[in-house]
Amino acid sequence: MSLLENIRGPRDLKALDAEDLTELAEEIRHFLIHAVARTGGHLGPNLGVVELSIALHRAFDSPADRILWDTGHQAYVHKLLTGRQDFSKLRGKGGLSGYPSREESEHDVIENSHASTALGWADGLAKANQVLGHWNRHVVAVIGDGALTGGMAWEALNNIAAAKDRPLIIVVNDNERSYAPTIGGLAHHLAGLRTTDGYERALSWGKDVVQRLPLLGTPLYESLHGAKKGFKDAFAPQGMFEDLGLKYLGPIDGHDIGAVEEALRRAKRFHGPVLVHCRTEKGRGYRPALEDEADRFHTVGVMNPLTCEPLVPAGGRSWTSVFGDEMLRIGAERPDVVAITAAMLHPVGLTKFAAAYPDRVWDVGIAEQHAATSAAGLATGGLHPVFAVYATFLNRAFDQVLMDVALHQCGVTFVLDRAGVTGTDGPSHNGMWDMSVLQVVPGLRIAAPRDADQLRAQLREAVDVHDAPTVVRFPKETVGPTLPSVARVGGMDVLSAPETTHPDVLLVAVGAMARVALDAADLLAARGTACTVVDPRWVKPVDAALPALAARHRVVAVVEDNSRTGGVGSAIAQTLRDADVDLPVRTFGIPEQFLPHAKRGEVLADLGLTPAEIAGRISAALVRRAAAPVTEEKDA
Amino acid sequence: MSLLENIRGPRDLKALDAEDLTELAEEIRHFLIHAVARTGGHLGPNLGVVELSIALHRAFDSPADRILWDTGHQAYVHKLLTGRQDFSKLRGKGGLSGYPSREESEHDVIENSHASTALGWADGLAKANQVLGHWNRHVVAVIGDGALTGGMAWEALNNIAAAKDRPLIIVVNDNERSYAPTIGGLAHHLAGLRTTDGYERALSWGKDVVQRLPLLGTPLYESLHGAKKGFKDAFAPQGMFEDLGLKYLGPIDGHDIGAVEEALRRAKRFHGPVLVHCRTEKGRGYRPALEDEADRFHTVGVMNPLTCEPLVPAGGRSWTSVFGDEMLRIGAERPDVVAITAAMLHPVGLTKFAAAYPDRVWDVGIAEQHAATSAAGLATGGLHPVFAVYATFLNRAFDQVLMDVALHQCGVTFVLDRAGVTGTDGPSHNGMWDMSVLQVVPGLRIAAPRDADQLRAQLREAVDVHDAPTVVRFPKETVGPTLPSVARVGGMDVLSAPETTHPDVLLVAVGAMARVALDAADLLAARGTACTVVDPRWVKPVDAALPALAARHRVVAVVEDNSRTGGVGSAIAQTLRDADVDLPVRTFGIPEQFLPHAKRGEVLADLGLTPAEIAGRISAALVRRAAAPVTEEKDA
Repeated sequence: MSLLENIRGPRDLKALDAEDLTELAEEIRHFLIHAVARTGGHLGPNLGVVELSIALHRAFDSPADRILWDTGHQAYVHKLLTGRQDFSKLRGKGGLSGYPSREESEHDVIENSHASTALGWADGLAKANQVLGHWNRHVVAVIGDGALTGGMAWEALNNIAAAKDRPLIIVVNDNERSYAPTIGGLAHHLAGLRTTDGYERALSWGKDVVQRLPLLGTPLYESLHGAKKGFKDAFAPQGMFEDLGLKYLGPIDGHDIGAVEEALRRAKRFHGPVLVHCRTEKGRGYRPALEDEADRFHTVGVMNPLTCEPLVPAGGRSWTSVFGDEMLRIGAERPDVVAITAAMLHPVGLTKFAAAYPDRVWDVGIAEQHAATSAAGLATGGLHPVFAVYATFLNRAFDQVLMDVALHQCGVTFVLDRAGVTGTDGPSHNGMWDMSVLQVVPGLRIAAPRDADQLRAQLREAVDVHDAPTVVRFPKETVGPTLPSVARVGGMDVLSAPETTHPDVLLVAVGAMARVALDAADLLAARGTACTVVDPRWVKPVDAALPALAARHRVVAVVEDNSRTGGVGSAIAQTLRDADVDLPVRTFGIPEQFLPHAKRGEVLADLGLTPAEIAGRISAALVRRAAAPVTEEKDA
Repeated sequence: MSLLENIRGPRDLKALDAEDLTELAEEIRHFLIHAVARTGGHLGPNLGVVELSIALHRAFDSPADRILWDTGHQAYVHKLLTGRQDFSKLRGKGGLSGYPSREESEHDVIENSHASTALGWADGLAKANQVLGHWNRHVVAVIGDGALTGGMAWEALNNIAAAKDRPLIIVVNDNERSYAPTIGGLAHHLAGLRTTDGYERALSWGKDVVQRLPLLGTPLYESLHGAKKGFKDAFAPQGMFEDLGLKYLGPIDGHDIGAVEEALRRAKRFHGPVLVHCRTEKGRGYRPALEDEADRFHTVGVMNPLTCEPLVPAGGRSWTSVFGDEMLRIGAERPDVVAITAAMLHPVGLTKFAAAYPDRVWDVGIAEQHAATSAAGLATGGLHPVFAVYATFLNRAFDQVLMDVALHQCGVTFVLDRAGVTGTDGPSHNGMWDMSVLQVVPGLRIAAPRDADQLRAQLREAVDVHDAPTVVRFPKETVGPTLPSVARVGGMDVLSAPETTHPDVLLVAVGAMARVALDAADLLAARGTACTVVDPRWVKPVDAALPALAARHRVVAVVEDNSRTGGVGSAIAQTLRDADVDLPVRTFGIPEQFLPHAKRGEVLADLGLTPAEIAGRISAALVRRAAAPVTEEKDA
């Protein structure tokens, strides 16, 4: 029986000696590589925190002490150490979540997979401990150097540092990268902190000089003290954190369990805010990851762990790559088009654009707010920025989209990848709110392309808008075959038109849901119900031709992979009301709930977003409608 | 003719000598005190930046050079220097905006009045200058020390500091306060920077020591260089900014025009990112402001400039004070209830609570994201936090409300003051999106109290919810008389019920719009149209009893002071559709546009949110409905 199998909880760790711990780390690394290869998941980040996780659970007593994992994808080792070793269905339906999950374990606190949140949580938990008099409980937050580039991490640091008497431990897991290498002034600062050798040399030299100088009373003593601090700062400018008021410990080798554990125990004794700076290596111990400079196997699909060859055949072109290739072409034609990414250059498909136009692309760090506001500045300065980002992460820049971009009528294009249901990454990765919250933004236009041709065309339409924000959103995974249009009404593509002049149903298909809508229409046609299927292409604003088109039908149905609340269906219903077209409208989308992790198709089926379910519910609405004479829509 | 009257634009400033400039500053200060006393507006911040604004316009050439004002309420002097000296209708309909306005002047860039944005704008504008080869154009952003506590300022600093060759000047206008004194680690750091005397002494002492030591080759030379830097850091730890990679100049006396101008010219010559630290005094030169420790006359109403007595009689109790008093009472009864403010303790009404329970209230700085996420931590730690904030500013924490508070089912109460139309502060202060964007948040509940009694009752209901976020929202200004209910249906208060069993109209009145709805119902009654007026109290989720109630009417109308897009009307319409109650629904709210500044009543009237307009449009809907037989709703 392996050491790992005997670890049922954090207590079991405390009986192990140094040799056992080293062996346990090896076992965990072996387990991770093979387990994640079978299911896919976050590999690189977890290989980097094996020793750190062990040390944390030895130095602290979870769950009374709170161990918080920022972003959450680095919590696999933590799961293994807290009684969760069945990774067979990791991120799959009914299996372990890819992030901490309160449902799974009392040792998990933060389920949110968005970056930079852990310090805010820690501040709140530490304040609660203080108010409730829990002086012997500790709060420790593990945050990557990349996540420190996010604004809310700064807001938290500023607050944490202000309370000298409130214990809180920040472990900076510094692997010099978020997805790609970490950017910005902070990264330079951390790089300075890493130069331990020069630091130690300077410190001892400084001590010597100080000891040899004569002592001339208090002012000079202060100067001497300052000199000592000064030598330290000159070579290892931890000044930034210490200036804010945080005690700084480090840098520590994050793969030395004993060293990390000792630093954490020192931090605990300090009874105030402490930052422990641990250097780790993403992908540690797994050669293919270490050799991959791009992102060190941040996330992997199902693969052969030795050869790293994918074991699930690629399903065709991804939406992301269609966007990336078209951006490259647009970049060649339009020198004013520039690109922005929030620490995800490769995942959002900007690799080729960046290679061709390195001076026209900026990685701003995990800083969506800055991405949006600096985009407003770029547009005002005469360029057309394209900010490519996962749909779920744009929520963090809602105020900036509204107040900086839209209020100032800036031509900025937001490309929302992973829109709709993303699936295996769980509730906080779904991009299911964009078409609701962005609806309220005056002047903003949203395109939901249904296929690769439309994505290319609508991206070009978007970058041609110079006085308002535009959004182009598309889902995860592979793009399906082209769905041709049979006619155009206003700006909308008619995908299927029955021969009758007064069909029963107008089925409005949003983006990638076009295929589902067409299949639902086929099922209805087989039952004798005539459907017009239309793709609005631009879902905001609602096309001016829609009310008149709708009025030629008895029922309107809208299918979208977005929250039903305030989404496209809701906007269409309002447009019809405003035009006095009081037809029944039925909206099919995502109900108001957080979605559990499972494959995208499984989630959509569970939500009833299938042709059969949609067709069935439209039929029911038609039966009701049959009881009501048609009067109002005729004169619309 | 005064000097000020002769300033038609920034060029006119450049001909003035030092004596003229001092006199001009005096004239401007005199002008501001008397002009703002006549109209109300932001007085303290503008009195603090008189000399700074003059120096900026002398050192730079706006508009080719971009002068950016963070938050914007400190731009009155800038307006005076750029050809706008008619302050007679400041913030009034048709008058000057209280913030920069692109429509007013080519010298204005950022209209957004939310804090911490200017550095992001500056980064974008500087990047555009770089891409377009505008090497001789400068970008200078003026930001307060308070606004530096906002996360997006940090995100921007991190990016600005990373590009050593991109000119950008940050002027920190350090008056030690945002609304109230600035909080957090950063404030301590800035306080350290302000100790100029010690700094200069240490620097010269360090130079002496260094010059007396023997020169022993490169490594020692570096150590010496480090020592020099060290002495500097020990007394004025600008380390934080320099560690990030920013050149630091300061501290400068922000009321010495010559000194500021000289620093700005030096900063221009540096051709890289520079931070110029100016110390200023909020309310400078106006004794009543300086003597008022609370907020140094941040904003004033119409007043006598000598006695500071308000010239417009107070109109009754404010919503804010009703909330503040009830919080005080709840605080006495519930030791678990704690409060959070984002740098606005007094304006949001938490003064009394803070005085009574100083250990249970936290000012987190201008950091709404941190407020929300630390609230999730507080709730998870066993407390019930109440975050009181202006409605418009909660937009900045949308992701945190969704992902930290709601996903984790935390009992956090958000109290949204200044919800709906705020008026004179212009487009970015209106709190008109909360009831739309928050609609999508699973589990979140929204209360819109109609009067003081309801505010007190619903605040108590909100803090009794422990497994979901709750929102209590109310408008600016004074609360009206109590509006009694005549019956309750489900959780809804019926405010007016006609005697007939099948009335024509169900009028749903949201929050403070109850009075308008009741008056509209009276107008309709006078025309023979019977209306039921109902206040849902909790507008999200839609009350389960609403569909059956609605089905007894022929038309449903919803009145709200929120964006029509995705608002309460939209949610009610969807609930009715989902219940197969296909009645005509008409929604009255704010159209999808940014609202120009004017008084709240003027704005509401311009939007048609008046009893007469609402009654008229409901009548029109009824006429249309009369053509259609009533069938569907009967069996609902």
